[in-house]
Amino acid sequence: MLHFDSDYMEGAHPEILRRLAEINFEKNAGYGQDEHCRSAARKIRSACFCPDAAVYFLPGGTQSNATVIDSLLKGYQGVVTAKTGHINVHEAGAIEAYGHKILALEQSEGKLEAKAITAFLDAFHADPTKEHMVEPGMVCISHPTEYGTLYTAAELEAISAACRRGRIPLYLDGARLGYGLSAQGTDVTLRMLAQLCDVFYIGGTKVGALLGEAVVFPNPTLADHFFTYSKRHGGVMAKGWIQGVQFDVLFTDGLYFDIAGRANALALELKQGLVQKGYRMFTDSVTNQQLVIVSDEKLLELDQKLTYSYWERFDEEHSVIRLATSWATTQEQITALLELF
Amino acid sequence: MLHFDSDYMEGAHPEILRRLAEINFEKNAGYGQDEHCRSAARKIRSACFCPDAAVYFLPGGTQSNATVIDSLLKGYQGVVTAKTGHINVHEAGAIEAYGHKILALEQSEGKLEAKAITAFLDAFHADPTKEHMVEPGMVCISHPTEYGTLYTAAELEAISAACRRGRIPLYLDGARLGYGLSAQGTDVTLRMLAQLCDVFYIGGTKVGALLGEAVVFPNPTLADHFFTYSKRHGGVMAKGWIQGVQFDVLFTDGLYFDIAGRANALALELKQGLVQKGYRMFTDSVTNQQLVIVSDEKLLELDQKLTYSYWERFDEEHSVIRLATSWATTQEQITALLELF
Amino acid sequence: MLHFDSDYMEGAHPEILRRLAEINFEKNAGYGQDEHCRSAARKIRSACFCPDAAVYFLPGGTQSNATVIDSLLKGYQGVVTAKTGHINVHEAGAIEAYGHKILALEQSEGKLEAKAITAFLDAFHADPTKEHMVEPGMVCISHPTEYGTLYTAAELEAISAACRRGRIPLYLDGARLGYGLSAQGTDVTLRMLAQLCDVFYIGGTKVGALLGEAVVFPNPTLADHFFTYSKRHGGVMAKGWIQGVQFDVLFTDGLYFDIAGRANALALELKQGLVQKGYRMFTDSVTNQQLVIVSDEKLLELDQKLTYSYWERFDEEHSVIRLATSWATTQEQITALLELF
Amino acid sequence: MLHFDSDYMEGAHPEILRRLAEINFEKNAGYGQDEHCRSAARKIRSACFCPDAAVYFLPGGTQSNATVIDSLLKGYQGVVTAKTGHINVHEAGAIEAYGHKILALEQSEGKLEAKAITAFLDAFHADPTKEHMVEPGMVCISHPTEYGTLYTAAELEAISAACRRGRIPLYLDGARLGYGLSAQGTDVTLRMLAQLCDVFYIGGTKVGALLGEAVVFPNPTLADHFFTYSKRHGGVMAKGWIQGVQFDVLFTDGLYFDIAGRANALALELKQGLVQKGYRMFTDSVTNQQLVIVSDEKLLELDQKLTYSYWERFDEEHSVIRLATSWATTQEQITALLELF
Repeated sequence: MLHFDSDYMEGAHPEILRRLAEINFEKNAGYGQDEHCRSAARKIRSACFCPDAAVYFLPGGTQSNATVIDSLLKGYQGVVTAKTGHINVHEAGAIEAYGHKILALEQSEGKLEAKAITAFLDAFHADPTKEHMVEPGMVCISHPTEYGTLYTAAELEAISAACRRGRIPLYLDGARLGYGLSAQGTDVTLRMLAQLCDVFYIGGTKVGALLGEAVVFPNPTLADHFFTYSKRHGGVMAKGWIQGVQFDVLFTDGLYFDIAGRANALALELKQGLVQKGYRMFTDSVTNQQLVIVSDEKLLELDQKLTYSYWERFDEEHSVIRLATSWATTQEQITALLELF
Repeated sequence: MLHFDSDYMEGAHPEILRRLAEINFEKNAGYGQDEHCRSAARKIRSACFCPDAAVYFLPGGTQSNATVIDSLLKGYQGVVTAKTGHINVHEAGAIEAYGHKILALEQSEGKLEAKAITAFLDAFHADPTKEHMVEPGMVCISHPTEYGTLYTAAELEAISAACRRGRIPLYLDGARLGYGLSAQGTDVTLRMLAQLCDVFYIGGTKVGALLGEAVVFPNPTLADHFFTYSKRHGGVMAKGWIQGVQFDVLFTDGLYFDIAGRANALALELKQGLVQKGYRMFTDSVTNQQLVIVSDEKLLELDQKLTYSYWERFDEEHSVIRLATSWATTQEQITALLELF
Repeated sequence: MLHFDSDYMEGAHPEILRRLAEINFEKNAGYGQDEHCRSAARKIRSACFCPDAAVYFLPGGTQSNATVIDSLLKGYQGVVTAKTGHINVHEAGAIEAYGHKILALEQSEGKLEAKAITAFLDAFHADPTKEHMVEPGMVCISHPTEYGTLYTAAELEAISAACRRGRIPLYLDGARLGYGLSAQGTDVTLRMLAQLCDVFYIGGTKVGALLGEAVVFPNPTLADHFFTYSKRHGGVMAKGWIQGVQFDVLFTDGLYFDIAGRANALALELKQGLVQKGYRMFTDSVTNQQLVIVSDEKLLELDQKLTYSYWERFDEEHSVIRLATSWATTQEQITALLELF
Repeated sequence: MLHFDSDYMEGAHPEILRRLAEINFEKNAGYGQDEHCRSAARKIRSACFCPDAAVYFLPGGTQSNATVIDSLLKGYQGVVTAKTGHINVHEAGAIEAYGHKILALEQSEGKLEAKAITAFLDAFHADPTKEHMVEPGMVCISHPTEYGTLYTAAELEAISAACRRGRIPLYLDGARLGYGLSAQGTDVTLRMLAQLCDVFYIGGTKVGALLGEAVVFPNPTLADHFFTYSKRHGGVMAKGWIQGVQFDVLFTDGLYFDIAGRANALALELKQGLVQKGYRMFTDSVTNQQLVIVSDEKLLELDQKLTYSYWERFDEEHSVIRLATSWATTQEQITALLELF
């Protein structure tokens, strides 16, 4: 049986496990006030070319999204995002649980357009009844998107400009950021993100860590009381240094990008193999998530030998499935996978 | 420098790390739907003599408290707890963040009395203005308490009876449950808790795990939609099996209780040593947390060689500090610690 | 200057003011526990053919919507409504403020279709990731809609059946219910609503009262703790009997329906007059709200002599405006209004 | 039967009703954007000697408290108040419903002490674990208190100074403010309140209006987006001018203070009569609420001829009851009441 359901099926990159074992008996201060977290934060700041950034570690993506959004929005504000955004679909109402409306816009392959953001902000501010409405208070985009697709540098610049013109912060959900930054042909860099976004998170769980996401505020004044917001959301780990150690390893010698680049390469090999066999891809993904259109008949056959993520119905006879690679995927597994198609 | 600040300063018990490494390349389903979580749940059910219990794994204690309480209370209800309860003092408003009032009662050494609960419930129901008030909808106690103290079986039975008479659930915050159940002289068992409580959690983070708490609903019908409540709280880990593996190890061959019993024994040795040296203890703790009264002058001296948790001021010249043992504390460290006093 | 902005520009129907003056010195129990509220509730129950209904009076529509929805949804649930629904657009996030997501569906002239509800519920329940999503927990429709349009009896029956099949309650926002029930050609009756809906409110503020809405639960078991939910939402008036008196008057000798029927008749006269003059209506409203398409040039002219509600842009040269009649609109005002066009 | 339960048993002062009838056919803009609200706001500003104040009208006291507190607190903050404060006891969790903890302090006759506030703020800021705690973000006091007692000018100055030293706003719940400002011997003025408080509300419902409270922000920058906060809380009335008209009347020729002064005088006559007859008062109230200690035996007798508010048990054989006067209380009623004792 092959397993390509997701990029969170295996443990941590061996180097992370090795390091966790190495420091297992060390005595560290709790709640992220330790030297490992400080070291990881320094390396992340350096990778972002952002010497003043505030960096926090949270255990998961939904937690990060809900805490960041709650900390930045005022009571009367909501968050603008794509209809397909994770926060709008797959977080069980974690944003609304803290009282904030999600203002969901039309999207294309998971991506928002700067024009759509500007049009939405302008329409709000021109509306004579706007005081009866939820004010758009920030924008949240995912990179890569939930469909594995990527923004270009120009697109991100336009979105950032739209937010700055509207005087609201831009937040980037980077659950799989590594795959995005390491993708073939992308012109987006971490440094650029730190310039264009007001806050973003660098996903660890899905890029080789056991758990953990690094929330980065390039301008630390935006991070006011973020620790207490995290505590209030149940997101502060007593053994916070476990997250710090992992990010310290991931941001040493470029491991984070190596892991992601390798997984991307295997995913592209998979994509090319599928296309050669005549399959159609649902989106044009250059990252570790590949969405392929498969006949329902073929799916029944695959079910015997493969686990995958069912994505959505394509038409009456076809479905979309997601196949994802990870730090642990091997060349052999890709070859075996392609043989099933 | 010695470090006795808390029981969450070191990593995981070596057997846990070994097992994590062993299964690192396994491919597991995400979000807790895997065989490790299932196995851990089976062992926990068995240890509780509770074959039908619903068991969920969450990353931390505040997360567990907020999710359980939110899932059990109706909108118009609040949770009764001791004034000194963790949820009332040190969770940054995580309970209120979901809309629920904490109804805090007087306590003694961190413990609530059944009589006080009954009196409070009776007063509420007799109040002609009760429809204008927050209805007490559940009771939350900590065992051990935040002061290291323990309820007796008779006390827990009385509290459970008070709750059942009032038709509200009893929830036990077991962040350090292992230390409580393994304490010398206690007559409280896990089986008993599963009979007396409607829901409780077995703390992992502070009893030898890297992270993770096991929420147990002896009667699974009370756990309706608990997964979605957890997701909404940001508490569902993508690699949920990391928690499952740890609890699977902890509940194999009684490791959980061995870890706790050993730490308790070292803590008692510490306590006896301190008392012999003429120190007064702030509470009569039989668990791994020892609260000792120290003169401020002595404290200045200790600061050179020891880190600890400052608890509270005792009088104008004395303070209370907490010293905690853990799975990693050694006999040598205790001896060295006592030499400082 | 003529004023046709809305139906809440004048005070109360004179009979209401007369009655308020008449009982001004009476001493009544507070918080709705008085004989006027009881009498009004009896008359409403009778008008609904619903002898067991629970009836509550709240000061306004947003308050009623937020309280009813909060009282009926569980934490993990959201409310399904039309994208154009008042709760989704013009209540400043009052639903989300209590933690609930609005699940907004496509609509037509403000109306939801039963088919769309069923399809949405079925898709949710078939989704393998539904435990990560907000569960649709109730449906909210407006009648008349925000566009002045009405459901037919058959449409309401189909929506009610869709909800019952999905085992979720149907809530009807009746801010302008009187106008709907008194409209020419409608086959919807109050009795029918009480059979098809699980809860609805009969709008007073916009149908001749100073303030007040009557929330009706045909099956009173659904109203569990509704008083306390109302208090928690800040919706319980100390002088609650002021609302009771008004509904008592409105539901005596059919005044509520007379007020609405008269306003509808004047609105239809207005509509016919506009159509005769060659104007196009934006929706085919048979109630007191008429949406008419006007050139921007004409609008500038109207601005000198008329106030109205600007609705939305129609095309580059035309806008939609709303003109509304009320209990206080006179034949002379309609004639004068038509002369402006 | 005599009725002294509360000050919200009768309608509005006749002058208010007269004025409501007079303008009943006027056409006013909705949602408080009308000339009556503007005129009332001007008169209130003038009475406060506060030309820049922002003034908003909300329908009730719980609504005002919840909206003001929600609008001023950040997510990680709570509100400091007396344990006996209305927001802590009798608002069914309306503050917590929006996510904020109430930090309740010990009190005396319903009053907070400046010293207690300062001690609490200092303790918080000195606590090494304060980042895990809810930060005190504002102070809320009631004047008169729930026990009918009053702060002196010196006490209010000290509380205001404590808040300013702690850099948090002071909010005054003035549900019965008129009675407080008109009380015999008080040295507190409205002008002083506007200098010492950051926000307060002038209660209308309990001082002669049908409904309505006027929220005053002496410094309007603190009122940022207050309209939208009110809408989000369901507190914006469509016919907002009904509130404006009432406050316009109340603040014309000092009617507000006349109403309150007259009710106070009758209450003092009642108090003196009771004391002469040998009754003990529970608090030393100089306002319209009098709390008297009555034997349970006497209570049974009174129940035949009087309705009152049962307050609390005093001892095994005595109870405390509240008797309140209002704009409608007559000399004859006081005489008749005293004859019952």
